Amino acid sequence: MNRIVPPPPPPPALRSLQDRLARSTLAEESRVHQPASFASWFAAARERSGLRVDRMELDGLRNWYRDPRTGALRHRSGGFFTIDGLDVRFPSGPVSQWQQPIIHQPEIGVLGLLAKEFDGVLHFLMQAKVEPGNRNHLQLSPTVQATRSNYLRLHKGRAVPYLRYFQERTRHHVIADVLQSEQGAWFFRKRNRNIVLEVTEDVGVEEDFRWLTLGEIYRLLAVEDIVNMDTRTTLSCLAPAGGGVDGVPDTGDGFRKALVRSCAGEPGGVHGMAELLSWITEHRAHTDLATRPVPLGELRDWHSSPERISHDSGRFFSVIGVAVSAGTREVGGWSQPMIEPHGTGVIAMLVKEIDGVLHVLMRASAEPGYVDGVELSPTVQCVPESYEVLPGAARPRFLGDVLSAPPERIRFTCLLSEEGGRFHHALNRYLVVEADGEAGLLEDRDHRWLTLNQLNALLRHSHYLNVQARSLVACLHSMLAPRPR
Amino acid sequence: MNRIVPPPPPPPALRSLQDRLARSTLAEESRVHQPASFASWFAAARERSGLRVDRMELDGLRNWYRDPRTGALRHRSGGFFTIDGLDVRFPSGPVSQWQQPIIHQPEIGVLGLLAKEFDGVLHFLMQAKVEPGNRNHLQLSPTVQATRSNYLRLHKGRAVPYLRYFQERTRHHVIADVLQSEQGAWFFRKRNRNIVLEVTEDVGVEEDFRWLTLGEIYRLLAVEDIVNMDTRTTLSCLAPAGGGVDGVPDTGDGFRKALVRSCAGEPGGVHGMAELLSWITEHRAHTDLATRPVPLGELRDWHSSPERISHDSGRFFSVIGVAVSAGTREVGGWSQPMIEPHGTGVIAMLVKEIDGVLHVLMRASAEPGYVDGVELSPTVQCVPESYEVLPGAARPRFLGDVLSAPPERIRFTCLLSEEGGRFHHALNRYLVVEADGEAGLLEDRDHRWLTLNQLNALLRHSHYLNVQARSLVACLHSMLAPRPR
Repeated sequence: MNRIVPPPPPPPALRSLQDRLARSTLAEESRVHQPASFASWFAAARERSGLRVDRMELDGLRNWYRDPRTGALRHRSGGFFTIDGLDVRFPSGPVSQWQQPIIHQPEIGVLGLLAKEFDGVLHFLMQAKVEPGNRNHLQLSPTVQATRSNYLRLHKGRAVPYLRYFQERTRHHVIADVLQSEQGAWFFRKRNRNIVLEVTEDVGVEEDFRWLTLGEIYRLLAVEDIVNMDTRTTLSCLAPAGGGVDGVPDTGDGFRKALVRSCAGEPGGVHGMAELLSWITEHRAHTDLATRPVPLGELRDWHSSPERISHDSGRFFSVIGVAVSAGTREVGGWSQPMIEPHGTGVIAMLVKEIDGVLHVLMRASAEPGYVDGVELSPTVQCVPESYEVLPGAARPRFLGDVLSAPPERIRFTCLLSEEGGRFHHALNRYLVVEADGEAGLLEDRDHRWLTLNQLNALLRHSHYLNVQARSLVACLHSMLAPRPR
Repeated sequence: MNRIVPPPPPPPALRSLQDRLARSTLAEESRVHQPASFASWFAAARERSGLRVDRMELDGLRNWYRDPRTGALRHRSGGFFTIDGLDVRFPSGPVSQWQQPIIHQPEIGVLGLLAKEFDGVLHFLMQAKVEPGNRNHLQLSPTVQATRSNYLRLHKGRAVPYLRYFQERTRHHVIADVLQSEQGAWFFRKRNRNIVLEVTEDVGVEEDFRWLTLGEIYRLLAVEDIVNMDTRTTLSCLAPAGGGVDGVPDTGDGFRKALVRSCAGEPGGVHGMAELLSWITEHRAHTDLATRPVPLGELRDWHSSPERISHDSGRFFSVIGVAVSAGTREVGGWSQPMIEPHGTGVIAMLVKEIDGVLHVLMRASAEPGYVDGVELSPTVQCVPESYEVLPGAARPRFLGDVLSAPPERIRFTCLLSEEGGRFHHALNRYLVVEADGEAGLLEDRDHRWLTLNQLNALLRHSHYLNVQARSLVACLHSMLAPRPR
């Protein structure tokens, strides 16, 4: 009597999940027979998509209107998202108060990744998906990437393929399932559900979908602007360790060996977990960032034209309107407002080998849209041009170090996009840079060294790592794969 | 160079923390020479306190005023707390909408417990503290129990003793440090910082303070209305296991043995951690409870008299005013509004041995004041009288089972108070009851069996266990102590 029904089906093998993820990381080619190469499959998907994106005036967006009382931009269905104004007070911050537009999207969307073993190797069902905000339109997305408005088909589009697996998750083996924040500077308390399921049954593969190993996805992650943000955040839930990654030849300078040890968690980090949790709690208890809604139409230091809502300095970002026409998306054509950032961001983690284990310098920081006040961000996360109009104290402590790092200290660098459904050409350079100098001296009130194993433990729970940090964790995991030949 | 400065001082012994907590649990007497017995020390503190609490009209509360726009009750300093109105929509709940008064207390208070080893046994510095809402006024509180308004001395009272230890926590060994919610039915997004620090230096013991072992505190926890809520929530951060508790004779029916195994975490629970986290995520993603502020003066179904704000049915709770005069509290006298619940609550966990390991039936539920929508509560948490005016579907599934359990199935029962600084005579009967019936059949969408070890793992993070569940976890830990002779 003692078993609880229904039990989830066990994973197909008794090897540990981390081992199986490591094995997939080492698999440079898919074990599934697929008629076309990745490149020709992806090119064919681009051909089919035929996406076209045109700027249009904000008041001309079909099915969108301005709230007569506040000027907020809303969809007539009441769904999707709203753009309204926010007043931010942050007495202890480098900028003590400001106002800005912000996206309200109370719906919790699904970012779902299906996994399945073929020939003893985990594969993940990836989608070639167009998003209007992507410079190149088509990128590699998780199996499912859908808001509630999408899957309730508010715009009367096609059903979301594979969604039913995630709606019936208890029939499958749950690898990860956690609510995570998105850009706290642009979204007000938005969270998405990052969920990875392993299935054992046969899965039909639709035209724009393809099974890839982690090794294949990680190789694409180093290619400019292919692996989208939603893929990166779901990948951050997957922590490979053991399983043979320790057998791959080192980079010659001990870097790879230190990375492998950092993922394995033995020996531990320079800070114990209780101490790190206490450091985060201290920041959450003392942050004085406070927000309140203000009308979008009355924002201080912002002005409106028919085409955009912009900051008077010309920096930060604008709200713009676009008209989209597409072939394969859930709906044929639509128009919507988007956030258009001004300038390319720099998102960097400083890393350092300490006692033979790679550590990452994380920053505890507050953003107006976080649910729980403070999350851990990469060492540096900013748009350098913005500092031309901000006080000197706002410039991140390690930005100069990252921008001037010699090539041999740059371990990873790639230009990647943020979410193309809400952000227009939001490009950031993601970097992993070896730190110069004494580890202890690089810590201050806001910065601590953590191992990847510690970051992976935090990633099982909500609100610890922000979306930029989760992207870089995926990049760090990708460095466990064999180097491209 | 590789060590990070400053390192926290190491704990005094190499034994694991869980072992040391277990040893303190088994210590029935303090190892510190203290001139008076606990009973006479506690009686002397009551003598000194001389607390007097009188009802008074809400509009007569000194330094409090009604916001002219909303009718909200506010303190003139802008600090402490505010009582305002809340509108709740909960389409999928048993009651789909209601309005109510709620306490806003955005300040994060400190619930701090100092620990120190004497003669190789951990002791905790407890305070005999008066609170106006306690029926018996004086209860056992943690070392520090202070809101920011208290310790900034907004009411010009005395400094908070021992607070500096928690303000300089990195000088000491952090055992636990986590933000936790309080009553989500009465507080809007309030969190307190639960922090336990171990010190090695000499600590002067002030008059109303006393070092107690866990064994002593746990014995007091079974006495009606002595151990206050703030002590119970800090105790829930302490998870004894091993260290000799497994050597204490069993209760004769295997119950104690199953409890010891549940704390030790070997073998595991019927559900894996990934599966349990996914169940919580599912509830958070789908809860449709939504709130918005409404004026306290215009609440539907509530009415005001000079003495109180009450629900038209006479059920649930009222907002009342009290005048307090005290000797030993931080300030000589003050007046304040309080929440006065109507009826004594029942807060119960059903437990069951499954495969030799004690499991607890937890419920995932939404309350209007939670930061993250859903937390785990005990199996049953309610005021039975309230159901006379609520729909039948609102009655908790297991309430009848708990109320009709024969004495041999009741493993723990004690009448305990909720926080006496905000709630007036808020009494609940806390119960641990052995479940009848097949474990699998007692689970449904909202209920899952967890081990104590799994609950302890969740308690390292915010927003998983509500304050009532944390109280009962402390009660379950207390059952590891030897039975009173």
